Amino acid sequence: MAGRLNVGAIGLGRMGRVYAQNLVRRVPNARLVAVADPKADLAEQFAREFGVPKWYKSHQELLSDREVEAVVVVTSTSTHKEVVLDAVANGKAVFCEKPIAMSLEEAREMLQKVEAAGVFFQPGFQRRFDAGYVAAQKQIEAGVIGTPVVLTSTSRDPFRPPLEFCDPKVSGGLIADMGIHDFDVARMYMGDVKSVYAVGCTLAYPEMKSVGDIDNAIINMVFESGALGAVHLSRNAVFGYDIRAEIWGTKGSLQIGYHRQTPILVMTKEGITHDAVPYFMERFESAYLVQIQDFVNKVQHGGKPAVTGVDAVAAMRISLAATRSLHEGRIVEIVAERQRDRQRASTADSKPTP
Amino acid sequence: MAGRLNVGAIGLGRMGRVYAQNLVRRVPNARLVAVADPKADLAEQFAREFGVPKWYKSHQELLSDREVEAVVVVTSTSTHKEVVLDAVANGKAVFCEKPIAMSLEEAREMLQKVEAAGVFFQPGFQRRFDAGYVAAQKQIEAGVIGTPVVLTSTSRDPFRPPLEFCDPKVSGGLIADMGIHDFDVARMYMGDVKSVYAVGCTLAYPEMKSVGDIDNAIINMVFESGALGAVHLSRNAVFGYDIRAEIWGTKGSLQIGYHRQTPILVMTKEGITHDAVPYFMERFESAYLVQIQDFVNKVQHGGKPAVTGVDAVAAMRISLAATRSLHEGRIVEIVAERQRDRQRASTADSKPTP
Amino acid sequence: MAGRLNVGAIGLGRMGRVYAQNLVRRVPNARLVAVADPKADLAEQFAREFGVPKWYKSHQELLSDREVEAVVVVTSTSTHKEVVLDAVANGKAVFCEKPIAMSLEEAREMLQKVEAAGVFFQPGFQRRFDAGYVAAQKQIEAGVIGTPVVLTSTSRDPFRPPLEFCDPKVSGGLIADMGIHDFDVARMYMGDVKSVYAVGCTLAYPEMKSVGDIDNAIINMVFESGALGAVHLSRNAVFGYDIRAEIWGTKGSLQIGYHRQTPILVMTKEGITHDAVPYFMERFESAYLVQIQDFVNKVQHGGKPAVTGVDAVAAMRISLAATRSLHEGRIVEIVAERQRDRQRASTADSKPTP
Amino acid sequence: MAGRLNVGAIGLGRMGRVYAQNLVRRVPNARLVAVADPKADLAEQFAREFGVPKWYKSHQELLSDREVEAVVVVTSTSTHKEVVLDAVANGKAVFCEKPIAMSLEEAREMLQKVEAAGVFFQPGFQRRFDAGYVAAQKQIEAGVIGTPVVLTSTSRDPFRPPLEFCDPKVSGGLIADMGIHDFDVARMYMGDVKSVYAVGCTLAYPEMKSVGDIDNAIINMVFESGALGAVHLSRNAVFGYDIRAEIWGTKGSLQIGYHRQTPILVMTKEGITHDAVPYFMERFESAYLVQIQDFVNKVQHGGKPAVTGVDAVAAMRISLAATRSLHEGRIVEIVAERQRDRQRASTADSKPTP
Repeated sequence: MAGRLNVGAIGLGRMGRVYAQNLVRRVPNARLVAVADPKADLAEQFAREFGVPKWYKSHQELLSDREVEAVVVVTSTSTHKEVVLDAVANGKAVFCEKPIAMSLEEAREMLQKVEAAGVFFQPGFQRRFDAGYVAAQKQIEAGVIGTPVVLTSTSRDPFRPPLEFCDPKVSGGLIADMGIHDFDVARMYMGDVKSVYAVGCTLAYPEMKSVGDIDNAIINMVFESGALGAVHLSRNAVFGYDIRAEIWGTKGSLQIGYHRQTPILVMTKEGITHDAVPYFMERFESAYLVQIQDFVNKVQHGGKPAVTGVDAVAAMRISLAATRSLHEGRIVEIVAERQRDRQRASTADSKPTP
Repeated sequence: MAGRLNVGAIGLGRMGRVYAQNLVRRVPNARLVAVADPKADLAEQFAREFGVPKWYKSHQELLSDREVEAVVVVTSTSTHKEVVLDAVANGKAVFCEKPIAMSLEEAREMLQKVEAAGVFFQPGFQRRFDAGYVAAQKQIEAGVIGTPVVLTSTSRDPFRPPLEFCDPKVSGGLIADMGIHDFDVARMYMGDVKSVYAVGCTLAYPEMKSVGDIDNAIINMVFESGALGAVHLSRNAVFGYDIRAEIWGTKGSLQIGYHRQTPILVMTKEGITHDAVPYFMERFESAYLVQIQDFVNKVQHGGKPAVTGVDAVAAMRISLAATRSLHEGRIVEIVAERQRDRQRASTADSKPTP
Repeated sequence: MAGRLNVGAIGLGRMGRVYAQNLVRRVPNARLVAVADPKADLAEQFAREFGVPKWYKSHQELLSDREVEAVVVVTSTSTHKEVVLDAVANGKAVFCEKPIAMSLEEAREMLQKVEAAGVFFQPGFQRRFDAGYVAAQKQIEAGVIGTPVVLTSTSRDPFRPPLEFCDPKVSGGLIADMGIHDFDVARMYMGDVKSVYAVGCTLAYPEMKSVGDIDNAIINMVFESGALGAVHLSRNAVFGYDIRAEIWGTKGSLQIGYHRQTPILVMTKEGITHDAVPYFMERFESAYLVQIQDFVNKVQHGGKPAVTGVDAVAAMRISLAATRSLHEGRIVEIVAERQRDRQRASTADSKPTP
Repeated sequence: MAGRLNVGAIGLGRMGRVYAQNLVRRVPNARLVAVADPKADLAEQFAREFGVPKWYKSHQELLSDREVEAVVVVTSTSTHKEVVLDAVANGKAVFCEKPIAMSLEEAREMLQKVEAAGVFFQPGFQRRFDAGYVAAQKQIEAGVIGTPVVLTSTSRDPFRPPLEFCDPKVSGGLIADMGIHDFDVARMYMGDVKSVYAVGCTLAYPEMKSVGDIDNAIINMVFESGALGAVHLSRNAVFGYDIRAEIWGTKGSLQIGYHRQTPILVMTKEGITHDAVPYFMERFESAYLVQIQDFVNKVQHGGKPAVTGVDAVAAMRISLAATRSLHEGRIVEIVAERQRDRQRASTADSKPTP
């Protein structure tokens, strides 16, 4: 079959398998030609089950496969830098699940290499591809709500992760781990953030204190435009997965999100009841598919990535600033740091590329 | 790859392509090995696009393909009998989109052959596989609403079909064309129907009178249990596709259905607005997949079909009785006819199978 | 205080007290000057509690009170004829709670006397004054939904009345007792009814069979315009009071009604739950007030009654026809009888008034 | 009529008239015996219209009326102190609309006098009497959501007040003017606040800058328990009046509020639309009635006020701290100031009362 993009999938954990399966089954113009995972058995088993021709233990092997045109990187965050830089060095187009790096420094280095190599690079922010978030963007662009002046973005998980994954040294802490999606959403609708202030607590799962993480946070934001924002993060939406955003404009407002999973109401003497969205796979099943489809389309037919490395760095910067605000109990100005970045970037631009 | 069922798809119209694509991409334990369509170009093009190894112009060719274990029949209703009987003669497991035949006589003949041959046969009623309808069934079985005493089932299309498809000689008329799903739902929750009374009108699209069809109908039902039912059918839910059911029991009630497609509210001085479900492909996308997955699972691993030929005949019988009620302006008793069927069937059972 | 209408309230049962209290407290341009109830103690007690100057045991006493300009009749249905005729004879403006009479013959006789005397007469149909039903009427008049072609109207009680009140000899049976509101709503939006067909059952409260009543009914209607309608009546909406209507037009549709009483959602692992409207006093509290306010306004300042005796008779006629349909198991044509009425009426019109 | 409380109403502006009318018509055990307003004409006119026996120009006249047992003070905030102290001096029970004073100093002085005189004193916080907020309190007390760990409270107006009322010298500014209700709600569910941080903007109505007010604010709170809170205030919910609260606990969460005013959905090709709650009188009509009924009941039959002067001071303190946070761009600790208050109070307690 002609006209398909040959893709390799690196990392076959839970999310990695979602991406890989979507590429096999639901992205018509992609062909998953290879998978790689340090657990070689897992890679082979997946390849056999889904008819993927080649499987590798190391990402380097996959990246040196000349047939592979683009890669989807869904490894643990700590390996993103190495894998992405290797992919860039091999001239592959790269999709990299969020967060793209463990630190801003890593991220900046990755982006410099990406830019220098001129390869296609897209970080994963699936909310940007969710029908509700997309529709909101269109309404805003159509002027339906006038000028946006306030944003709220909410992410609430139905339970906490295992304690080992709560450890901020692994996860970056609640704000970075969960909030990065909300900060990206915030930028999409409202532009860049000027300052943040975060408060947090560990009241729902006191045992999380042992690893140094919190279970709830509220982050105030002031955007460069002067507009306001708030991000709410929680691990104890025990009824289900609660993802929402509101954008308040001068002529109207938008509310994104929903709570009911199954279209049925049960009406008894105990009340009128429905169920809830269980978790992120149910909530964003379509968004993950649309996102990777968009990546394949853009790589294949040209076009800028819908989400850029600059977006990923910007969201990281906010989440790190908010985390610092939480720890230091103070308002953190982001704008200065961003300007420093820009200067650095423009200096880099003026240099001859290697 | 071992462990897959080899399936052939007969008929590649709009719905046929949906089934075929689901089989290619989203039913892991199926392998679509052949497609057939009288438009040979269409069959070849689909096969090439989706990597189906074989394509045929006639269903007989496909059915004589020894590799094909099961077939999905989505041809025009007028050909169902011939295709299904040929499939049965070739010992294939058969999934046949609703309605399975043009008349009760045809349907009965098909079922006799199916039973005689002992092949797996499943008619298409995708609502039975929709999450809302499935959840309702579970709630009823769990006793949550006590004994069901009243059912309402609603199907409203956002527009009328082209006039040529409205012609009752082709479609069977509004009640048979749309209502058969509702009558099947009615039986699923409430058991068999004793009598029906239907009223109809042609007020939204007067031009439909030229072909002899109506645009709205309401059908009253009395079930054999003494319970009551109502089916509402319409072609002028101009805002969208409106599929609902309610089951009222002695201890509670259930309401199935939803209206909003995209999870966003737009709030302006004009009011608070959301969109609607556009049409049946959006509403039942998952149900179509779950249905064909269930067919493949049962054929492969054994088990009775989730929907049987008897179900298809019973729903047809109600829709035909309701159509007769509409035309003759009288209450139609169904029970007598069904008993006649049963006698006929039991006589058949006592005969030695050929 | 000048400018108030002097009103007398006849009948101080549950609903009578609602009307009387509204007149005392919430209708600024009314003065409740007298109450009457066969239970003289009750009348005196109410009068003292609410500062009503006069109280009577018999309605005749109240009606002969020259100060009383208008009366609100909320006695048992079997006495409506006598009380209304006495009120008419005394030249009082009359508000009479539904149903206005035990039979069409009684109702017709009452209306003839009302017309002959030229007094203001308004039957009680509070749904016409509910904000949702009023808004629907405005939308229809504004052409928002085009031509209405289908109506559904639903009334479901959370429990059955005491058996003695279920007795059709007292209540008229489920269809007359509950359905009369729905039939009035049907006429308001869709015009007169041509034929009805009703089915019923007694499955939720089998003990109701002992008094000859049913607990659920579905009534099909064909309107004179050719449009269709359905009325759903039930005594077993055990979760609460379920009042709804839908009007389906050529350009859109309207849905009237709501289920949640208290504005709070409870979200736990058991699901997302809210309460329900308990019963008619909560659902129609405002409508009862708006209705009696409108009566007082019209009597005081002139204007036709928002609901007329003709409306009351028409709704009764449908409910009686539907009851007959239920008992006789056949479709009942209403139009002939209504034409007979009209002829009778026009004959009456041509006679000199007594 | 025996058993009624004789009440005087001071101030007959928009809200004052609401209270006065409720007392006349809808609080059975109250008798509004006198009204006072500096606009003597207004007082007389209201008294004549509503049958209030006495009317006065000055509040002192009303307060020296021996028949008056309790007063409802709904004058402009700048006069609250004087009126309340005069009422206290006359031994009247006092209901005083929020905010009770222009400054914490004023409020503290008032409370000292109230306590010293031992009179009944209740500040107005009608949300505490709204069905949704009351139901939430009961759910929390019943343990349904476990321990509350996060609160959000939202107040959004559909338009800005006239500029002269926006002037912070008159209104106290957005945070004090609107937020005091949210801060009171916060305390009701979560206890006392430890620190606040506020951000604000003036983007929807730039002309408000001319008087020094903002049109949107978000306030972060940390409660003494360690729990978190956020208050959202806005003047540009142009679609309607948006009042909500959420309480997130360890076992579940509660969402208070609603958007639709009229129970009707309009469904056309443009979408599915409903209206919104217009403004506070529609949203809190019942709550205002229940609140003043509760005041009358408690004064008449004994019992502590449902809301106390301490509550009023505490909510003021938070709103002032949040306003300071906004102006100074820093986190403001409230706890120290509150402790100072407590010491002062306990010192006062140990003194002999005058």
